[in-house]
Amino acid sequence: MEKSRLETETQLRVRYSETDAMQVVYHGNYLNWFEIGRTEMMRQAGIPYRETERKGILLPVIEARAFYHAPARYDDLIMVRTSLVEARVKVKFEYQILREADRQLLVDGYTVHAWVNQDMKPVLLRKVLPDMDQKIMEWFRG
Amino acid sequence: MEKSRLETETQLRVRYSETDAMQVVYHGNYLNWFEIGRTEMMRQAGIPYRETERKGILLPVIEARAFYHAPARYDDLIMVRTSLVEARVKVKFEYQILREADRQLLVDGYTVHAWVNQDMKPVLLRKVLPDMDQKIMEWFRG
Amino acid sequence: MEKSRLETETQLRVRYSETDAMQVVYHGNYLNWFEIGRTEMMRQAGIPYRETERKGILLPVIEARAFYHAPARYDDLIMVRTSLVEARVKVKFEYQILREADRQLLVDGYTVHAWVNQDMKPVLLRKVLPDMDQKIMEWFRG
Amino acid sequence: MEKSRLETETQLRVRYSETDAMQVVYHGNYLNWFEIGRTEMMRQAGIPYRETERKGILLPVIEARAFYHAPARYDDLIMVRTSLVEARVKVKFEYQILREADRQLLVDGYTVHAWVNQDMKPVLLRKVLPDMDQKIMEWFRG
Repeated sequence: MEKSRLETETQLRVRYSETDAMQVVYHGNYLNWFEIGRTEMMRQAGIPYRETERKGILLPVIEARAFYHAPARYDDLIMVRTSLVEARVKVKFEYQILREADRQLLVDGYTVHAWVNQDMKPVLLRKVLPDMDQKIMEWFRG
Repeated sequence: MEKSRLETETQLRVRYSETDAMQVVYHGNYLNWFEIGRTEMMRQAGIPYRETERKGILLPVIEARAFYHAPARYDDLIMVRTSLVEARVKVKFEYQILREADRQLLVDGYTVHAWVNQDMKPVLLRKVLPDMDQKIMEWFRG
Repeated sequence: MEKSRLETETQLRVRYSETDAMQVVYHGNYLNWFEIGRTEMMRQAGIPYRETERKGILLPVIEARAFYHAPARYDDLIMVRTSLVEARVKVKFEYQILREADRQLLVDGYTVHAWVNQDMKPVLLRKVLPDMDQKIMEWFRG
Repeated sequence: MEKSRLETETQLRVRYSETDAMQVVYHGNYLNWFEIGRTEMMRQAGIPYRETERKGILLPVIEARAFYHAPARYDDLIMVRTSLVEARVKVKFEYQILREADRQLLVDGYTVHAWVNQDMKPVLLRKVLPDMDQKIMEWFRG
C-alpha cells in the first residue's frame, strides 16, 4: 500500500534582481523559491502560514539543503514543485525547481522546520493549534 | 556664518549576491548601502537605531532618491559618505557612494524619514525620547 | 486632444524574504517591483527586455525615486501599475504600487533609464535596434 | 599526526535589509555570509576569486547545506569562520556563523563547488590555472 504524497506546483518568473554576475540566478535565491513553494502548499491546504503567524505560532527553518544541477537565467519561467514529507515532530518539505520550457531539473533540495512560539521555544501544534494540526494531518495522509 | 555638516564615512566591499546579470551592482542594492551609512552615522552620534527601535520608536523611509553615475562591481571597495541635512520635523540624510580605488562618485541620493511609533503614527522625538532628540540636535548643530 | 498613456498592471504576492524586522516590506524591495512592472510592460509591447540584452543593448537605471505612503506586509497581494511616460532621448517609467484588497496606494515613484551598449556607452535605439525603436514609438503614441 | 586546517575569520554586522518579519535574519541570507567567508579566505590565500573570474574560471556552488541553531538579529556583530576541507576534485568549504558578543554558534554548514569555464563545463584547475592550483594545494596542506 502506497502513501500518496501531495504535491503543489507554483510558477514564477526569474527577476533581474535575482541574477548575479555569472548571469545566472544567485544560488542563495533558490531558498526564497523553496519558501514560495511551501507558502503556496500551506495556502492550498487551508492553513495559510500568515494565519499561524497571527496566532503567534512560527515555523522557522532549522535545516536547508540544495543541490544545483543547472542554472536558471533572467526571465525564465520556473516551476517550484513542493511536497510535504514529514509533519509529525518535525516538518519537512522537499522541492524541485524546474525550467518550464523543457522541464529540466535545475535545483532540488529540502527544508526542515519546527513549530515554535514567539520566544522561539518549540511547541506541539496539536496542543497550540489543534484545528490546524488536524488539517495538516488529514492532508498529509492524502 | 557657516553651518558645519557632520559627515560619516563607512567602508564596505561589494558582495557577489549584490551583483546582477549586467555584471554590476543591482541598482536597488544602493538603498541597502544608504541604510548602512545612516546606521553607522547614528551609532557614532551615540543614538544607535537599534536602541530607538527597542524603545518602540521607528524611523521608516518616506522618500528615497538615487542618481546612478557609474557602476560598482563585484569585490570593489566602496565608501559610503553620509550627511544629516535635516532633523527637525522630518529627518533627511544625503549619501555619496564612492569607489575607494579612485574616489570616483558612483551613486548619490537621499532618504527622508519620519519618527513613528509601532502603529506607524508620527511622533515628536522631543516628546517620546527627549534625551535622543537632544543628542541629535547637538550633533546636528555640529 | 489627449495623449493616451498606456499602462500595464502586474500582480505579485509579498514574499517572506521581502519583509524586514519592522514586519513590513523592506523599502529597497519596491525597486525590484518597479523592475517587474517595466519588464512586463516591455513584454506586452512585444519588446521583451531579455531580447534587447541578447542583442547587446542594455537599459540601466540612471535615476530612481520612490515615495512611501503605507507599508505592504507579508503575503499581501500587490498590483504594480506601470506607465511609460518618456521614450525619446531618455526612457522614463512611472509606477504605482497598490494593495489589491482595497486598492490602497502604498508606494509610487519613477525610474529614468538610458539605452547603452555593453561598454555602458549611450546609444540611439533607432540606430542600433530600429525595429524595436519603431515598436516602442508606436506603442508610446498609443 | 594531525592535518592543520586553515581557517579564516571575517566579521560583519547584520543589516536591516537582511532581517525578516520574524525580526531575525532571513535564513537564506546565511548563504550570502558563507560566500563572504570563502571570498575572504581565497583573498588571504593569494587567490582572489575576482582574479579567477577574470581569467574565465568560475567556482559555482553545486551543493549548499545549513543548520540553524539560533537566530542573528539586526545590528548584531557576526563572525564567519571558514575552513577549506577539500580542494582536489571538488572544492568544499565549511562555515560557522557565530555571534561576536558571546561566541554563540548560530548557524553552521558547508558548500561544495566545482571549477568550470564560462560555458559552465568542468575544468581541472591544475590545467587551466596551474599557478593558482599550486597556491591552493600549498595552502590546503597548511
